[in-house]
Amino acid sequence: MENYDVIVIGGGPGGYPAAIRSSQLGLRVALVEQGRLGGECVNYGCIPTKSMVKPVETLWSLSRMGFIKLSFEVDFESYMNWVNSVSSKVSEGVAGLLRGYSVDVYDAKARLSEGGLVELSDGRVLKASKIVVSTGTDPAALPNIEFDGALIHNNRTILGLRKKPSRIIIVGAGYIGVEFANVMAKVGVEVHLVEALDRVLPMMEEDFSKLLSRRLSRLGVKIYTSTRIEEVDRRDSYVKARLSNGVELEANHMLVAVGRKPNTRGIGLEKAGVELDERGYVKVDESMKTSNPSIYAAGDSTGPPLLAHKAFAQAIVAAEAIAGLKSFYDPKAIPSIVFADPEIVSVGLTEAEAKKAGYNVGVTKLPLGGLARAVIEDSLDSFIKIVYEDSSKTILGIHIAGPHASELAGEAALAIEMGATLEDLSSTIHPHPTISEALQEVAELALRKPKHFILRRKSLSPNG
Amino acid sequence: MENYDVIVIGGGPGGYPAAIRSSQLGLRVALVEQGRLGGECVNYGCIPTKSMVKPVETLWSLSRMGFIKLSFEVDFESYMNWVNSVSSKVSEGVAGLLRGYSVDVYDAKARLSEGGLVELSDGRVLKASKIVVSTGTDPAALPNIEFDGALIHNNRTILGLRKKPSRIIIVGAGYIGVEFANVMAKVGVEVHLVEALDRVLPMMEEDFSKLLSRRLSRLGVKIYTSTRIEEVDRRDSYVKARLSNGVELEANHMLVAVGRKPNTRGIGLEKAGVELDERGYVKVDESMKTSNPSIYAAGDSTGPPLLAHKAFAQAIVAAEAIAGLKSFYDPKAIPSIVFADPEIVSVGLTEAEAKKAGYNVGVTKLPLGGLARAVIEDSLDSFIKIVYEDSSKTILGIHIAGPHASELAGEAALAIEMGATLEDLSSTIHPHPTISEALQEVAELALRKPKHFILRRKSLSPNG
Repeated sequence: MENYDVIVIGGGPGGYPAAIRSSQLGLRVALVEQGRLGGECVNYGCIPTKSMVKPVETLWSLSRMGFIKLSFEVDFESYMNWVNSVSSKVSEGVAGLLRGYSVDVYDAKARLSEGGLVELSDGRVLKASKIVVSTGTDPAALPNIEFDGALIHNNRTILGLRKKPSRIIIVGAGYIGVEFANVMAKVGVEVHLVEALDRVLPMMEEDFSKLLSRRLSRLGVKIYTSTRIEEVDRRDSYVKARLSNGVELEANHMLVAVGRKPNTRGIGLEKAGVELDERGYVKVDESMKTSNPSIYAAGDSTGPPLLAHKAFAQAIVAAEAIAGLKSFYDPKAIPSIVFADPEIVSVGLTEAEAKKAGYNVGVTKLPLGGLARAVIEDSLDSFIKIVYEDSSKTILGIHIAGPHASELAGEAALAIEMGATLEDLSSTIHPHPTISEALQEVAELALRKPKHFILRRKSLSPNG
Repeated sequence: MENYDVIVIGGGPGGYPAAIRSSQLGLRVALVEQGRLGGECVNYGCIPTKSMVKPVETLWSLSRMGFIKLSFEVDFESYMNWVNSVSSKVSEGVAGLLRGYSVDVYDAKARLSEGGLVELSDGRVLKASKIVVSTGTDPAALPNIEFDGALIHNNRTILGLRKKPSRIIIVGAGYIGVEFANVMAKVGVEVHLVEALDRVLPMMEEDFSKLLSRRLSRLGVKIYTSTRIEEVDRRDSYVKARLSNGVELEANHMLVAVGRKPNTRGIGLEKAGVELDERGYVKVDESMKTSNPSIYAAGDSTGPPLLAHKAFAQAIVAAEAIAGLKSFYDPKAIPSIVFADPEIVSVGLTEAEAKKAGYNVGVTKLPLGGLARAVIEDSLDSFIKIVYEDSSKTILGIHIAGPHASELAGEAALAIEMGATLEDLSSTIHPHPTISEALQEVAELALRKPKHFILRRKSLSPNG
């Protein structure tokens, strides 16, 4: 029986960084993963979906430039093969990192037992003084409609498509649904997007929903909000769906993206005395310790937000806490991104959240049409919204819809983490011409001194 | 004779924001500009050159994706017309802002006289209690080789090209030369890049020079470093150049980008008692006041760095100081960007500058090949370098070569302005998968805890 300081269960973003950090801290580490290293993110989430976006957006951007005579043919099979090859490359990168850090990787399913024992599906048993659980989440299905990976897909099996569908029904207009709707529509698939709540991206600022609805509709995406799937009929080579609004749709495929469920059942957590919350997520304290002091957890299995970069941070904390360092997970800001067109970023508090938290809230919104870069990028309906505490002018939240916005989320998070004020942001020189100027200009606008926006006369300073 | 609180001379980035801010502060403002509003940046610099880059990089990126069968034809004339149309749009935007702020715009050349008088080339005379000089710089020519705008171009006249040259000689491998070399090579022009110093981008970190030389050479650009132009022969429709290394070149055009000279002579500055430095730049204090307390200056005419975003900041300070606010120009970090492939960013101190300034310097460089986003973007030779004070771990400089790097410069500047430490940067959650993760990961590497980089065993922590 192999003995370790730490066994990490799960090779995704909540797992492999915990193994790497443990090794850096001198611990002997095993990692157990029965699927592909890199987990949901690398194999079925962030990486393949963002790979799908890249060529499509590039092509789209080009096809709108009138001075380029363009003819192109996207070989869908090669496209999807390339998407999967990026995942494989990144997954191999994770394997290489684990090798470099002398982490023993077991290709098996793990089950917790008592006394620090971990039973593997291949019959082997490992032992460790500390265990990190990072088993992630699985896609949730619609009630009574199982995934079959042929007609009814989740975010994993949809990546197996090698023939371009002519029509697809996407159920759920959260970020996965919206990202797929955008990409599919741009490669020429007829997209029907069905959302039970009353707008697309229902969990985000309403401004985003409006912009995205407009953009998707312009691509020909049919959006059905406040609409449910009543019934699904599987035929030989297509699927038939009846919606709650009476519409009947036939399509080659249905992609269901209606949520996630924690992968925490049947892996011995109860037996090991690890408490779950009512939704099945592992309860942890701020050092990522579970109710069993020898067992830690990180990543999606600890609950929302279900984001790779949150998992990274938690994994590091778990490893450091196990090694005896004082390490806590307590971020003020975790960026959420939707890699749609335009990219959408939400960091820190929304206006509603800030009010609910009792702040004296100031909010300023700047349309980005006045930024030279937005003209170059042909994205004049972009905008940025900043939420701040109105007396100290401390920044509480930053929300952006615009080209390259995903690369600005880090700055937004840094500003919030460091307690930056509007003055800090407005006095930091941002380079011209970039979309990053939006962060400076919105702070300037909030301070009533914008460079590229006309203040109405009555709102000028009292001297005016 | 019209009477103003403030007259701004020059409608570029050092001028128009000074006019706008003055108006916001309740002052009566005139702006005098004999050329196009927006100045060098909007009409001949940042905006048209970045517009040139955008479609070319998009096309380039696409042409490297094997799964897309692509055929395209760039109509050079329409391309350059589009580039100029972006400039026009942005210039009209500036005009709109000035109208919105009730700034009187005079289309004339201005000359300072005594007692707050400004004489216009159309004979009118204006008067103001305060004047802001923002007359910018002009392109410097090679000794004895005048610009003719037909064969021998500067950054202004080159934008008049409507026929794609088959061969061009670019003199000077600073950022203008490098940006044009990249774009021209990618649209199929044979480019010869001649630099008197011993590397391309001679004013920047040497790592950047190596990367850019490699990338440009791969595009077929012939680079001649430590080489001067000895002689230029103008023929009817082409130019012949003899280089100091003996090579003789014939080309359709020559673009000279060897520096700038301040536009401060012959506009009455001496008469108005405004002191210039030995290079001809206007001397200013930290509130942008010149040696004449009624005259302020902002932008390029005050000396390097010659950057639009620096001019913006100085313009605001000048206007606020004139209005009696306590406003000082004292940034710790001004981003420099080269919009090449990849984009290059330099913010704060280089390693050499930090050592020279007496800091106990730590430097960490992270290749970005381990970032998932760099795999998606197919830019594995990208890198980031962070310079910090080694005991406090305070960040002094950040230098990046990579896709989207221009959008990360704002975060780098904010970190330096706020006195962020490596720990601040490493504990800020950056979204996955983005290039912005480079900022977090390089800080983690400097702290010996990288997630996606293998530390050599001996450099692991003492516990290891």
